[in-house]
Amino acid sequence: MINIYTLGGYEEVGKNMTAVEYNGEVVIIDMGIRLDRVLIHEDVEFQKMPSKELRKIGAIPDDTPIRNKKVVAIAFSHGHLDHIGAIAKLAPHYPDVPIYGTSYTIKLAKSEVKSEQYFEVKNPMYETQYGEIVQVSENLAIEFVQITHSIPHSSIVVVHTPEGAVVYACDYKFDNNSPLGEKPDYKRLKEIGKEGVKVLIAESTRVAEQTKTPSEAVAKMLLEDFFYYDGMDEKGLIATTFASHIARLQELIEIANNIGRQAILVGRSLAKYTGIAKQLGLIKMKGSRVLRSPNAVQKVLREVSQARENYLLIVTGHQGEPGAVLTRMANGELYNIGKDDTVVFSAGVIPNPLNIAQRYALETKLKMKGVRMVKNLHVSGHASREDHRYLIKMLNPENIVPAHGEFRMLTHYAELAEEEGYLIGRDVFVSRNGYKVEISR
Amino acid sequence: MINIYTLGGYEEVGKNMTAVEYNGEVVIIDMGIRLDRVLIHEDVEFQKMPSKELRKIGAIPDDTPIRNKKVVAIAFSHGHLDHIGAIAKLAPHYPDVPIYGTSYTIKLAKSEVKSEQYFEVKNPMYETQYGEIVQVSENLAIEFVQITHSIPHSSIVVVHTPEGAVVYACDYKFDNNSPLGEKPDYKRLKEIGKEGVKVLIAESTRVAEQTKTPSEAVAKMLLEDFFYYDGMDEKGLIATTFASHIARLQELIEIANNIGRQAILVGRSLAKYTGIAKQLGLIKMKGSRVLRSPNAVQKVLREVSQARENYLLIVTGHQGEPGAVLTRMANGELYNIGKDDTVVFSAGVIPNPLNIAQRYALETKLKMKGVRMVKNLHVSGHASREDHRYLIKMLNPENIVPAHGEFRMLTHYAELAEEEGYLIGRDVFVSRNGYKVEISR
Amino acid sequence: MINIYTLGGYEEVGKNMTAVEYNGEVVIIDMGIRLDRVLIHEDVEFQKMPSKELRKIGAIPDDTPIRNKKVVAIAFSHGHLDHIGAIAKLAPHYPDVPIYGTSYTIKLAKSEVKSEQYFEVKNPMYETQYGEIVQVSENLAIEFVQITHSIPHSSIVVVHTPEGAVVYACDYKFDNNSPLGEKPDYKRLKEIGKEGVKVLIAESTRVAEQTKTPSEAVAKMLLEDFFYYDGMDEKGLIATTFASHIARLQELIEIANNIGRQAILVGRSLAKYTGIAKQLGLIKMKGSRVLRSPNAVQKVLREVSQARENYLLIVTGHQGEPGAVLTRMANGELYNIGKDDTVVFSAGVIPNPLNIAQRYALETKLKMKGVRMVKNLHVSGHASREDHRYLIKMLNPENIVPAHGEFRMLTHYAELAEEEGYLIGRDVFVSRNGYKVEISR
Amino acid sequence: MINIYTLGGYEEVGKNMTAVEYNGEVVIIDMGIRLDRVLIHEDVEFQKMPSKELRKIGAIPDDTPIRNKKVVAIAFSHGHLDHIGAIAKLAPHYPDVPIYGTSYTIKLAKSEVKSEQYFEVKNPMYETQYGEIVQVSENLAIEFVQITHSIPHSSIVVVHTPEGAVVYACDYKFDNNSPLGEKPDYKRLKEIGKEGVKVLIAESTRVAEQTKTPSEAVAKMLLEDFFYYDGMDEKGLIATTFASHIARLQELIEIANNIGRQAILVGRSLAKYTGIAKQLGLIKMKGSRVLRSPNAVQKVLREVSQARENYLLIVTGHQGEPGAVLTRMANGELYNIGKDDTVVFSAGVIPNPLNIAQRYALETKLKMKGVRMVKNLHVSGHASREDHRYLIKMLNPENIVPAHGEFRMLTHYAELAEEEGYLIGRDVFVSRNGYKVEISR
Repeated sequence: MINIYTLGGYEEVGKNMTAVEYNGEVVIIDMGIRLDRVLIHEDVEFQKMPSKELRKIGAIPDDTPIRNKKVVAIAFSHGHLDHIGAIAKLAPHYPDVPIYGTSYTIKLAKSEVKSEQYFEVKNPMYETQYGEIVQVSENLAIEFVQITHSIPHSSIVVVHTPEGAVVYACDYKFDNNSPLGEKPDYKRLKEIGKEGVKVLIAESTRVAEQTKTPSEAVAKMLLEDFFYYDGMDEKGLIATTFASHIARLQELIEIANNIGRQAILVGRSLAKYTGIAKQLGLIKMKGSRVLRSPNAVQKVLREVSQARENYLLIVTGHQGEPGAVLTRMANGELYNIGKDDTVVFSAGVIPNPLNIAQRYALETKLKMKGVRMVKNLHVSGHASREDHRYLIKMLNPENIVPAHGEFRMLTHYAELAEEEGYLIGRDVFVSRNGYKVEISR
Repeated sequence: MINIYTLGGYEEVGKNMTAVEYNGEVVIIDMGIRLDRVLIHEDVEFQKMPSKELRKIGAIPDDTPIRNKKVVAIAFSHGHLDHIGAIAKLAPHYPDVPIYGTSYTIKLAKSEVKSEQYFEVKNPMYETQYGEIVQVSENLAIEFVQITHSIPHSSIVVVHTPEGAVVYACDYKFDNNSPLGEKPDYKRLKEIGKEGVKVLIAESTRVAEQTKTPSEAVAKMLLEDFFYYDGMDEKGLIATTFASHIARLQELIEIANNIGRQAILVGRSLAKYTGIAKQLGLIKMKGSRVLRSPNAVQKVLREVSQARENYLLIVTGHQGEPGAVLTRMANGELYNIGKDDTVVFSAGVIPNPLNIAQRYALETKLKMKGVRMVKNLHVSGHASREDHRYLIKMLNPENIVPAHGEFRMLTHYAELAEEEGYLIGRDVFVSRNGYKVEISR
Repeated sequence: MINIYTLGGYEEVGKNMTAVEYNGEVVIIDMGIRLDRVLIHEDVEFQKMPSKELRKIGAIPDDTPIRNKKVVAIAFSHGHLDHIGAIAKLAPHYPDVPIYGTSYTIKLAKSEVKSEQYFEVKNPMYETQYGEIVQVSENLAIEFVQITHSIPHSSIVVVHTPEGAVVYACDYKFDNNSPLGEKPDYKRLKEIGKEGVKVLIAESTRVAEQTKTPSEAVAKMLLEDFFYYDGMDEKGLIATTFASHIARLQELIEIANNIGRQAILVGRSLAKYTGIAKQLGLIKMKGSRVLRSPNAVQKVLREVSQARENYLLIVTGHQGEPGAVLTRMANGELYNIGKDDTVVFSAGVIPNPLNIAQRYALETKLKMKGVRMVKNLHVSGHASREDHRYLIKMLNPENIVPAHGEFRMLTHYAELAEEEGYLIGRDVFVSRNGYKVEISR
Repeated sequence: MINIYTLGGYEEVGKNMTAVEYNGEVVIIDMGIRLDRVLIHEDVEFQKMPSKELRKIGAIPDDTPIRNKKVVAIAFSHGHLDHIGAIAKLAPHYPDVPIYGTSYTIKLAKSEVKSEQYFEVKNPMYETQYGEIVQVSENLAIEFVQITHSIPHSSIVVVHTPEGAVVYACDYKFDNNSPLGEKPDYKRLKEIGKEGVKVLIAESTRVAEQTKTPSEAVAKMLLEDFFYYDGMDEKGLIATTFASHIARLQELIEIANNIGRQAILVGRSLAKYTGIAKQLGLIKMKGSRVLRSPNAVQKVLREVSQARENYLLIVTGHQGEPGAVLTRMANGELYNIGKDDTVVFSAGVIPNPLNIAQRYALETKLKMKGVRMVKNLHVSGHASREDHRYLIKMLNPENIVPAHGEFRMLTHYAELAEEEGYLIGRDVFVSRNGYKVEISR
């Protein structure tokens, strides 16, 4: 019998954590955080908080149901914080258990560990290759299948058990035209489908969108269509996107080169993600600069403001996060942003009341300063309904556990599964944080 | 010729200020603040800011267009902060000009002045009676007509000019069954209509609601229907509403008496508004207590928490405002709020992203503590479409200037005016902050 | 073991049908229709269609899972069409099985049977009293507990089994101030709770509303607040509400009497529902008239249009249904409706795209004719979250099956149940049309 | 002095009609219909209705204000029905006045005239070239400037007057990567801006979208991303889009060729628009077929259903319009559509309650038949906020009249104009149907 412990991400978009148990042995997949739960407590500093407190405010998963189990491996699907951000708080619960992930993912995880203040993470951490199958115990092996998402080196994690594969597909899209050249490994997915999938655990954030998620190439075209456009002979150009979205950053840097401007990436977060990406050969930074230290930021931005037409600033702050570069600019710091500047949001608004409020505050301030804004030059990194349908068709799983979403999203996934012949309660299981799904058949 | 200076409240719900000019003489009506513009700047303390700064962030009206005019009077329609809150910042621009308003309004204005830290307000302030006509210059007189709203002593302000009346109806509803016994003075409004109304300046916040705004008696019944209900044998009962909503507070106190609990009003704001109301005989506090000092709050709430079934707490914080009592309770301060408590929101959610976020944070925290919540036991204090239509019919004004609303609200009012035979640009004027509408006919 | 067959109303608001099986014997509760599924097929005439066709388009429940079971009784909870409307199509499947319900319910069911064109219903039909317990087999008994809703004689249906009670609470509210004097039988509900409830099957349409549903007395006050209002000296007054909402019709008739107008109820549907209600002493029609025949309608409305100030017309058509009286008026038939008329909608908009469109068409036409409209003088007849919580507390059921709603509504109910200590999949079961829930514990 | 008569499209998206008067001479621009006003009257047949009736139900503009004026020319901006559809009803009011437009536009207008049943249109009709300036009177000349939109041969219409140009930019986007190769004539627009623009009349449907409208190349990529995708090995493929959207149809035909299927365009409407387009060399139909006659449709679709994998059906009905091919398929006619078919909506949902309902009915029926649906592979043809801003910058008009939108859209445009330094009432004029805007400066 296989048990699926749905520990986090089954009542929210965030703090993803799932555990697969076979014959008393457990593989943990992902250890994420939920940032909005930190946000509603004004005085909370995530790094300084012990795990007990964080669990209490719902910011990290509660791993109690598996605390005393025999955990044989921890796998990270990709490097986003809602999948790896709780490593420093939770990995110490499983001291010697090895952690696996693709190179970019593991390097980001190590960076998280380094910035932790309270806990020490001693787990061995290994960078795996796509296609490699890691035997983590006599019975269990894990495999990382190449997939596309909004961060490099994303993977669908497969736990191979004697009863069949458990496939964890959280945070993926099928991008057949990725500008970075990454490709979904349809061939391997179909093979796994033929070998036999016992359980599919799939994300459900955008399953209600009745379409196929557009390729990142569409985002690239949206940006090019805007920046190469006759009417855009603006002075100051400032773009903001996700710091981990290497493909998007690559596109912006290329655009800067093509319009004869220097791309300047501003902020520690951008420095961290592009730094590791560059080290792995995932991004070409030619023609661009990265400002990391507060001093450099201050000094260079002062220069930029004297000759705005020569630069494309790439900054953090697309959600109006406190302390981010764009947020500080809107507050009148760093750079006298104003009516000569255009801000390009290459990101959507994360639909959470706190984000909406922060973004609103940001936009209101920018508007009061006369800044021109262009929004939504962006496509999502998450699978839509028709992508999910195709995954089900390739894998033909015996059972499905919708994951990574609010309750209504999980139920939307369940409705899709019904369209494909499954029955809720029989072979589709809508779970909640802290539950265990028993796959007995 | 009459000029209407639309200084504030013509692009937002907030910071209301309008000036009426006849033959070089000016009457100012209302001087309000816009709190959400303070909120988006985290470090701003309203009381400590000079008017120039507040104007810059859009928190108070820009009175530049009338700064050098001959202002003969300032009239306050009612005591809400979006109508009187800027008194300490703006009244000093018109040093000796007398300020008029009903008793409750003037007493609240004086309280605002007292708490001001930077400016000194020396203007003489007079409490007027409904029906009284104050001759403020050779040509101009002002009159306060009784009306109903969500605060006592509200008035429709009329500026009588040789060319006819200018009627300012901002923040009103037609409540024919007010539990406090206040009544709209239909008789006087019809008389003024017959005498001739040159301009009607009317609020437009809820003009899109195609109904008549329900009486406060409906809110009373909603509360009674809830509190007298068999299923409500809860331990802790906590109600939250607007501190200035004396009628609502009266209803809650009566309910507490009827269910054998002691009503305890917690917080400085509630103390201020009920204190002045009591002094004027507007509220009966029998059977209730008011906690003003931090010490008293701390001490009494500790006692209450030992015997919750004996009390009905009435607190501030229905919008999740930082520092409000309910917000602090949700943060784990003051009172160990939890699964034995029911919080009754006798207030709607103010539809501004920052409020929505604060309220969301509040509700999330309360929910995490297991608190039961009951929402929307409330009716609005603002006129709906059919109330506005009736006002137009009674007054039959020559011209209309929609006020007190976002642009789209003003245009909705203009559409109503069209239904009643007016034409936009001819006798309905949709204005913006800082404009002047010239009434030449 | 008890099985709950969730046959209809588990994926929609409409076509409710549930069956309770104990030891091979089955009690059917409700046989409703889903009108919007008829509406999207333009040429469909419900009365003329055989059940197979209606099942195919999703307009009536598919009773296949119980067709060959031993059905011992059919119980109707109340007289709305989404609970009894399929009687003529489905009851013939169970030829001699007796049908039970309160008087008003059974009389309406008989009226449905009479207007059926294709099927003959031969089942014996019995009018039961609140409190009466009908032994329908050796093991099973059914009981009708008094409850309040938007139609008279509503009941919570209890199926008593040797393993405990199965309580079916679909379409109810807790109205403690009903103008008709009906009262929820809290005493009996608490008793049943003490005797032991095996399963609660509860509606979930409004469980997401975090409040208590207001009493019908609030609707009464909204209507009075409007009609007795100084500004309402209109000529033509036309009110529209649900034909089966006897309490609301009673309020309108009383209002007409009080403002010196004659209430005229127009249309067959109003005639049917008030006719039966009068027969049972549920409504006092004094001072009013009912127009049933097309001739009478035509003739009387012509007279009314000559002296509009003497009448209050009460008509069907609040959702813009094709063929309804108000819809026809808007099309220029029956009565020259126009700028002298005010239409009062004492009903909400049913949130289905087809209804929304029909209502939109209705309002657009009325607006083009200059008709004044007043909306939302209405309260719902369905329980909100806090009513549901109280029901759970009174009954303390071992298991819960949310019913009567779209999937997302059922899941919202499940979330409420979780707040009260239940677990999804363990003792709360979110089902779908056609499923069987097995209660084994 | 120039007068702008805002006759239609100033309170809705539809029935566009504007007239420019200089010194007693009038140029009419566009004569459109408003289909949703026809739709809400079930029994109305547009073609059979006289203009008086159509005006009464709001389906065509009321041209009364200019009926007795000296009209010297009629100009059509492009061939959509909301711009030319009323020609047969209104052009006869101006018997000998010549009508001008680009080739595709005029040919479509003639086709409209031909299908008219009641009126005879005798006006001379001329096909103009981009760049050509037609002197229509001693004082007035009209010019058609090339622009991009969702139909070929769209133009910005310029009326040259002695006081400066009046520029009519209704229905345009700035598409710099149009797959059809069409280009906005930025050079000429800038020249006209330099020569002096007295009035800009600009559409406002999407001005609230704070972005630049994506190029049609993005829609092309969305389609290719979907159809060339591994997971799309479906049997039946059915695409639906606007019959006049030649670029989109071209893309679909090319895709069909590339995936080895035959494109079959089904329906009279598609035949009409592609027929004229082909005649003008605007579309390459190689590899495709067009079914016009009911017989051909019936016969060929029967064949297609036997070998679905060989075809890509392109059909009408994306909004669920009654009588359209897809609507009929959903009703079970023409082709046994079912679980082997995928329907691709290359169109958005037109946000009108009647459309929403029809589309909902369509989707519900398709879903009940097991059809797979893919939505929103589409981009808009209308300018967004940043396109509008650029147009204002190029033209630098003295005055602006927002057009082509509901009141709230016009006001959103006015807000944009304010950002660019205009003032409402001074040089931006929010008008209504039937008004005249006098440009006196």
